[in-house]
Amino acid sequence: MGNKPLAVVVLSGGMDSTVCAAIAINQGFEIAGLHLNYGQRTEKKELDCFNKIADYYKIDKRLIIDFSQLSQIGGSSLTDYRLDVPEANFERDEIPNTYVPFRNALILSMAVAWAEVLNANAIFIGAVEEDSSGYPDCRRIFFNAYQEIINLGTKPETKIKLYTPLINMSKKDIVLTGNSLGVPFELTWSCYKSNTIACGECDSCALRLRGFYQAGINDPLLYEKKIKFE
Amino acid sequence: MGNKPLAVVVLSGGMDSTVCAAIAINQGFEIAGLHLNYGQRTEKKELDCFNKIADYYKIDKRLIIDFSQLSQIGGSSLTDYRLDVPEANFERDEIPNTYVPFRNALILSMAVAWAEVLNANAIFIGAVEEDSSGYPDCRRIFFNAYQEIINLGTKPETKIKLYTPLINMSKKDIVLTGNSLGVPFELTWSCYKSNTIACGECDSCALRLRGFYQAGINDPLLYEKKIKFE
Repeated sequence: MGNKPLAVVVLSGGMDSTVCAAIAINQGFEIAGLHLNYGQRTEKKELDCFNKIADYYKIDKRLIIDFSQLSQIGGSSLTDYRLDVPEANFERDEIPNTYVPFRNALILSMAVAWAEVLNANAIFIGAVEEDSSGYPDCRRIFFNAYQEIINLGTKPETKIKLYTPLINMSKKDIVLTGNSLGVPFELTWSCYKSNTIACGECDSCALRLRGFYQAGINDPLLYEKKIKFE
Repeated sequence: MGNKPLAVVVLSGGMDSTVCAAIAINQGFEIAGLHLNYGQRTEKKELDCFNKIADYYKIDKRLIIDFSQLSQIGGSSLTDYRLDVPEANFERDEIPNTYVPFRNALILSMAVAWAEVLNANAIFIGAVEEDSSGYPDCRRIFFNAYQEIINLGTKPETKIKLYTPLINMSKKDIVLTGNSLGVPFELTWSCYKSNTIACGECDSCALRLRGFYQAGINDPLLYEKKIKFE
């Protein structure tokens, strides 16, 4: 086991990051799991999922970083509880208020710092361009530029490759890929609103449910209310 | 006052960041002060200096982010108390163990998130390439690449320019510039080791003392022991 290359995987506890971890494992990496608490409403549930998923994959190296103080910065309904989480809208033009400013840059900076200390060879992050509600830091072009930052901002002997295996996938593709890799979907959490039973109505629930519907696979999670697709 | 452009200034409480703030003010910006506690040994003193400097410059917008959990990542003597802070060595080839992995990327990601929420026009950071002990994320080339990350990772309507006015300065230049702008050097802190009287022996004290010596200006701080220059 010790001879496998090491990858830091950003593991929120959600479906996408879990499929991303499964891909890294399938590519032969040993995994170190990084979980970020940035003060979102559903952190309690997500942390619980993170630990169950890490147990499932026998991940020993775990790092949980609490920067819930991001909520001091405000500007997002995920961390600023005075704002309402909007219901799903596939036709929306503007960036929704669930956007956490520059979140992926924050997450990556923690991942790179840890990867450098661990002498890891790779970072995996399950960002998705198409289904990302237009968040600017979910785009491939952003991650390509971030690779340059990693190369320039770490020690000369550090070589860390940034992988975004889901970047061009639809939620349907993610469900199908996860299914083929045996991902335990029942341990993953996507809902933006709830810590108990998924609401089934927020953007994140709706995208997940549509993905399962289009893949023709049953989502094993319980939902308060399921959007109907046809 | 409300019509001035707004700049987020990363303000550690050190001499460099204070001179950087003075430059931003001199260029006509209203300032928002961002202070990061990343679990370094001298944080108590630095936070105290941050607040005194912010009072001095009448900065209302202040944000103090505690990610002291960075010490969980380890790898630096500034945050991992099991490692000793080395004494100054101007001839050192390798990167010293005071290097905090990817620290400037971490700091900038917080600064950009806050700047986006505040609708700020600029970020100022007092990084210095020449006197930076070889930290890879203190180089101009790193900050140039980071500007691209800011452009790509924020909303289309967000326009944030990253300023590094000290990047090509020597410590002598910084002392001279600060002196000409009336910077209250007595409120600033540079020592890596102590929270009370500056040690005068660590890299950071030595670089500061040499800068004052070369500028022909007296450093108003008290030192335990002053390196002699001639």
